[in-house]
Amino acid sequence: MSWNSFGRVFRFTTWGESHGPALGVVVDGCPPGLTLAEADIQPWLDKRRPGTSRFTTQRQEPDQVRILSGVFEGRTTGTPISLMIENVDQRSKDYSEVALAYRPGHADYAYDAKYGFRDYRGGGRSSARETAARVAAGAVARAVIPEVSIRAYLVELGGDAIDRSAFDDAEIDRNPFFCPDAAAAQRWEAIMDRTRKAGSSVGAIVECVATGVPAGWGAPVYAKLDSELAAAAMSINAVKGVEIGDGFAAARLTGEQNADPMRPGADGRPEFLANHAGGVAGGIATGQPVVLRVAMKPTSSILTPVETISRTGEASEIRTKGRHDPCVGIRAAPVVEAMMALVLADQKMLHRGQVEG
Amino acid sequence: MSWNSFGRVFRFTTWGESHGPALGVVVDGCPPGLTLAEADIQPWLDKRRPGTSRFTTQRQEPDQVRILSGVFEGRTTGTPISLMIENVDQRSKDYSEVALAYRPGHADYAYDAKYGFRDYRGGGRSSARETAARVAAGAVARAVIPEVSIRAYLVELGGDAIDRSAFDDAEIDRNPFFCPDAAAAQRWEAIMDRTRKAGSSVGAIVECVATGVPAGWGAPVYAKLDSELAAAAMSINAVKGVEIGDGFAAARLTGEQNADPMRPGADGRPEFLANHAGGVAGGIATGQPVVLRVAMKPTSSILTPVETISRTGEASEIRTKGRHDPCVGIRAAPVVEAMMALVLADQKMLHRGQVEG
Amino acid sequence: MSWNSFGRVFRFTTWGESHGPALGVVVDGCPPGLTLAEADIQPWLDKRRPGTSRFTTQRQEPDQVRILSGVFEGRTTGTPISLMIENVDQRSKDYSEVALAYRPGHADYAYDAKYGFRDYRGGGRSSARETAARVAAGAVARAVIPEVSIRAYLVELGGDAIDRSAFDDAEIDRNPFFCPDAAAAQRWEAIMDRTRKAGSSVGAIVECVATGVPAGWGAPVYAKLDSELAAAAMSINAVKGVEIGDGFAAARLTGEQNADPMRPGADGRPEFLANHAGGVAGGIATGQPVVLRVAMKPTSSILTPVETISRTGEASEIRTKGRHDPCVGIRAAPVVEAMMALVLADQKMLHRGQVEG
Amino acid sequence: MSWNSFGRVFRFTTWGESHGPALGVVVDGCPPGLTLAEADIQPWLDKRRPGTSRFTTQRQEPDQVRILSGVFEGRTTGTPISLMIENVDQRSKDYSEVALAYRPGHADYAYDAKYGFRDYRGGGRSSARETAARVAAGAVARAVIPEVSIRAYLVELGGDAIDRSAFDDAEIDRNPFFCPDAAAAQRWEAIMDRTRKAGSSVGAIVECVATGVPAGWGAPVYAKLDSELAAAAMSINAVKGVEIGDGFAAARLTGEQNADPMRPGADGRPEFLANHAGGVAGGIATGQPVVLRVAMKPTSSILTPVETISRTGEASEIRTKGRHDPCVGIRAAPVVEAMMALVLADQKMLHRGQVEG
Repeated sequence: MSWNSFGRVFRFTTWGESHGPALGVVVDGCPPGLTLAEADIQPWLDKRRPGTSRFTTQRQEPDQVRILSGVFEGRTTGTPISLMIENVDQRSKDYSEVALAYRPGHADYAYDAKYGFRDYRGGGRSSARETAARVAAGAVARAVIPEVSIRAYLVELGGDAIDRSAFDDAEIDRNPFFCPDAAAAQRWEAIMDRTRKAGSSVGAIVECVATGVPAGWGAPVYAKLDSELAAAAMSINAVKGVEIGDGFAAARLTGEQNADPMRPGADGRPEFLANHAGGVAGGIATGQPVVLRVAMKPTSSILTPVETISRTGEASEIRTKGRHDPCVGIRAAPVVEAMMALVLADQKMLHRGQVEG
Repeated sequence: MSWNSFGRVFRFTTWGESHGPALGVVVDGCPPGLTLAEADIQPWLDKRRPGTSRFTTQRQEPDQVRILSGVFEGRTTGTPISLMIENVDQRSKDYSEVALAYRPGHADYAYDAKYGFRDYRGGGRSSARETAARVAAGAVARAVIPEVSIRAYLVELGGDAIDRSAFDDAEIDRNPFFCPDAAAAQRWEAIMDRTRKAGSSVGAIVECVATGVPAGWGAPVYAKLDSELAAAAMSINAVKGVEIGDGFAAARLTGEQNADPMRPGADGRPEFLANHAGGVAGGIATGQPVVLRVAMKPTSSILTPVETISRTGEASEIRTKGRHDPCVGIRAAPVVEAMMALVLADQKMLHRGQVEG
Repeated sequence: MSWNSFGRVFRFTTWGESHGPALGVVVDGCPPGLTLAEADIQPWLDKRRPGTSRFTTQRQEPDQVRILSGVFEGRTTGTPISLMIENVDQRSKDYSEVALAYRPGHADYAYDAKYGFRDYRGGGRSSARETAARVAAGAVARAVIPEVSIRAYLVELGGDAIDRSAFDDAEIDRNPFFCPDAAAAQRWEAIMDRTRKAGSSVGAIVECVATGVPAGWGAPVYAKLDSELAAAAMSINAVKGVEIGDGFAAARLTGEQNADPMRPGADGRPEFLANHAGGVAGGIATGQPVVLRVAMKPTSSILTPVETISRTGEASEIRTKGRHDPCVGIRAAPVVEAMMALVLADQKMLHRGQVEG
Repeated sequence: MSWNSFGRVFRFTTWGESHGPALGVVVDGCPPGLTLAEADIQPWLDKRRPGTSRFTTQRQEPDQVRILSGVFEGRTTGTPISLMIENVDQRSKDYSEVALAYRPGHADYAYDAKYGFRDYRGGGRSSARETAARVAAGAVARAVIPEVSIRAYLVELGGDAIDRSAFDDAEIDRNPFFCPDAAAAQRWEAIMDRTRKAGSSVGAIVECVATGVPAGWGAPVYAKLDSELAAAAMSINAVKGVEIGDGFAAARLTGEQNADPMRPGADGRPEFLANHAGGVAGGIATGQPVVLRVAMKPTSSILTPVETISRTGEASEIRTKGRHDPCVGIRAAPVVEAMMALVLADQKMLHRGQVEG
């Protein structure tokens, strides 16, 4: 098993650095016969694309995807789907400062400790540009699970939470924050403007809900649906926490409060009276919405100088100029959606493989 | 890749049901020449063993481990280490109620949805007895990483948190709650007695810290150290949330607050002035303590009747009699430690394989 | 991925040494609901069992299998199936000679070179006793692929080949050599008696045919059906060559001679006019019988002294006394059958996972 | 684990079809700090390139490789290395015949049986063009194992074998057949001219020897060095047989004849007096040359019409016009070398990961 692949039977491998010529992904194990074109992938990339509002990095990347293999006459062939995105705006900047000193919070020091050297241009492989490849792969995954709808949105930004009673699904696409609460979106605009001007950064909490996941997908122990989602989410840049259903709040409930009672539903399947579990019991989907929540730390790139050391071990100080997202959590929403889709596609195929239809 | 294995090159596979004749684990990929005897494994199992205080299940299991392979003349041979624990207290109870109706919060319904039927005795494969096998495997992992110290403890039980300023490492083993705060331990005793008498249950938060992890272990993308820890933790029964370092609190900090500044340390390595990151940057260890926190939901087995449906879809009601832990979070501490050890042993070997010493 | 596991989604992990207390296998990923009892596994083990004729080792092992998990009320549950076989005839012999000097052709030197030391009793992990675990796993695999019939037999022993025109399927079980040609079986008896008396050994060629494999199982590149079979076969002790269909003979044919022409068959499927390909094209089953052939070297344990070196590097000489098979190829037939079943079960599930029914 | 990846910790994933825009490979797990440039990869591709003599396909492909990631300032970074080769000579030919009828011996029917449809242009994913990606990956693998020398050559073509006593290493690169026997090379020229003119095809046997493999690489059971090599070799297009060391001939030897006696060598390591084992015992390298031999069937594309069926099941006949190799075995030599390098690089890293230096 490799370091840059994810999934068991629906498996993808990403490659590429922030400032290399291109980045991409190979999606392996995709079922044959699914309709797929570049136009099915591009809209998801466009949602994650940088530079779409003043609240994200101003790096201009069209993030145009090309399908290089695995699709014939508009349908997947069952063989590897190679997707490539060229980097076009690798601004020729002076990286000497970053090359010489470690940016705290970034992977600079850890990479040098591991590999002995690193591609310091824009963070190299540790850049969040890698997530573009995940989003492209996620678009393929969506084709595998047409029965499932996936939606990610921010429920908190800079410590300011949405009002759940004002939740409006349609609002999510109307503001640059994937925010389902119009009033919160307005407040966040102010927070972001203030943050950006200060050269500071803020964190965020992203929630992702998948509806239509059939009861039975998942596995009992180490390939638990929630375990896979946790790995998937924690592998996204800047994520420091993961919750399923009530998450940490569940630790403060009693067994009675946390129960998800069932009664016979209209369609013969159970109707659940609550969803504290977030749609997963014993690692297996219950048929309820699968609810995943992730905590994103504030961007480590800030204008305030921070104490650090140089490659040669001397005391130094660094402040991160240049283009960056003041809140990486915003553009993470499409990435979390993609990872949800990728995990579910894999689990669907694993389930179908083990349990005869 | 299989459903009941974990790890990449240091890999273990667990097997067994709550009420089968035995349970066990095969640990594969262990380095040769390590000193290992049953006496090195048993103490860790004893910490997780049921029935050691009135606050855990009264099922009496000695959890005696046997080494069946992979050790010769007291040392690991490099071939698979098979460990077996016999079940001895599978009380002959009447399971007809559980066989016929689904316990909400348990995996009963999900298993039936997946497999079409299930071993309903004590939860079968979904029982937390499976975690005994992990603890046994974890003892082997510890032999692989002598440079690392691992300690797990509860920081919250039933919504009552410890006082961090009263943290006393020595206290952890002096109370039945793995609680590092003597005053909190006393309060928890009251909470647990009340909970047990009410036939109710409570949740908990377990924190696990690994010190001595060398900078460089880990990987940049899907085998990130924190991603592996998230998967490992979320695969433990009843876990609903995972945090690394500041976790969800990091989402409420600014970049300045969240920075972990560095300055030259006495030994040539950097000295970090904070550890918001929890010892991991870009998926790779920084050399600081690795900090993992998990949220455990309250046990789903409660005496209060809960609405449910029967296997045949009729409305029903169930209350879970019999032996169970009113707070599964307590006995989870040794399990979280084991999973931390297992992930680190694997990452050590992956690192050594890729990067020449 | 580990060293002692095989398979992708139907995956098994074996453990145990020749002279340890037991050996076993964990079969993971098995579909639920299959009828399975120890009585379904034992007959296959009995075919491989030592000591059934004067032509195999005289070690007396009942090879009684126990199911320790994964089966409930006579059916597989979909969770790991743990199978254990106790070693009962680990004769207390003097191993000092083997401990001190390397037996040429055995793994003794290679193990020491790799691990620094080894379990020298009966070959430890390198003993062919490990294959008992494969045969047990293979019995589970057979339950997964009821549409397939698998038959292995010897086509050559000690350089003496069967007469293909005298092939009689019923004969295979009538002689101690799994030989389908009665006349050859008689000749082999003489060869074996002569070999045994001389303390020598001979090689053999085992052929295994699987009929009923549906067209479509397999994969195009690195999980090719024939590639998986080659790995499976070459992993069996003493195997030095693997052929699919015509194998090496195909290298001497022209394209015209090697063609497998097709014409419309009675059932709508193609009827093939030849099977040079051995049932696999481009890594995928064609629906024809899958034909695998393996070459087994002569047992390395012989009474004639052979030059060797000691653990400390001095010149020495060794002759292998004790119980051994003068032709390991004989008892390999059930093992090859098992590996065929295991590969096919895995490929069936992979296929079902990727391609909707 | 996926269908189009190979290797455990040094792992590569290939993608691309014969007539798509490009093909490529992602090499994951490569150690950091190795010198690598396109110029290190291109020479190996040039050896496999079509159209270099009149004895191979006349398709004109420059097979220019581009490194898209994983290399910085001329050295590998430890992150995925993406290599791409554009297809430039996908001649716009009429594929209607191939689209409608199955070419016997090709994967056409099997692909349709599996996937329901196929990319019929030049064989799509089943084309041997995929092996260009392996050769590119193999060049990276060579950088991982500088201690090893690998050489593949043909020992038989069209049933005509070389004279081992005339073996001349320097001759291999002097003729278009990778033939180490000058006299045989001359005879093969005549065979190939005759075959080409007749629109026929012939098979071949390729031998590959790796010297310098340290004793200890490999593993005892399912990741045996020889098992991995068998899988690697059998995954190459047109391979029908694999041998290690004496291979099938070993089945005709006695234990005495097959022994590889040892005596103390000059350097403290054993000196072996023979190498029937082909450098592998019990799945682990002995330090002797690793000897792999593969049988390649004759190309299935021939001008003689062969009986077949159409996609719709009617009786038909097909003859394969167009550009093809009359003996695919010739260009397979660099591919077998690449697979040997890839397996050894993986095993080196696995060994280093498990066994401390």
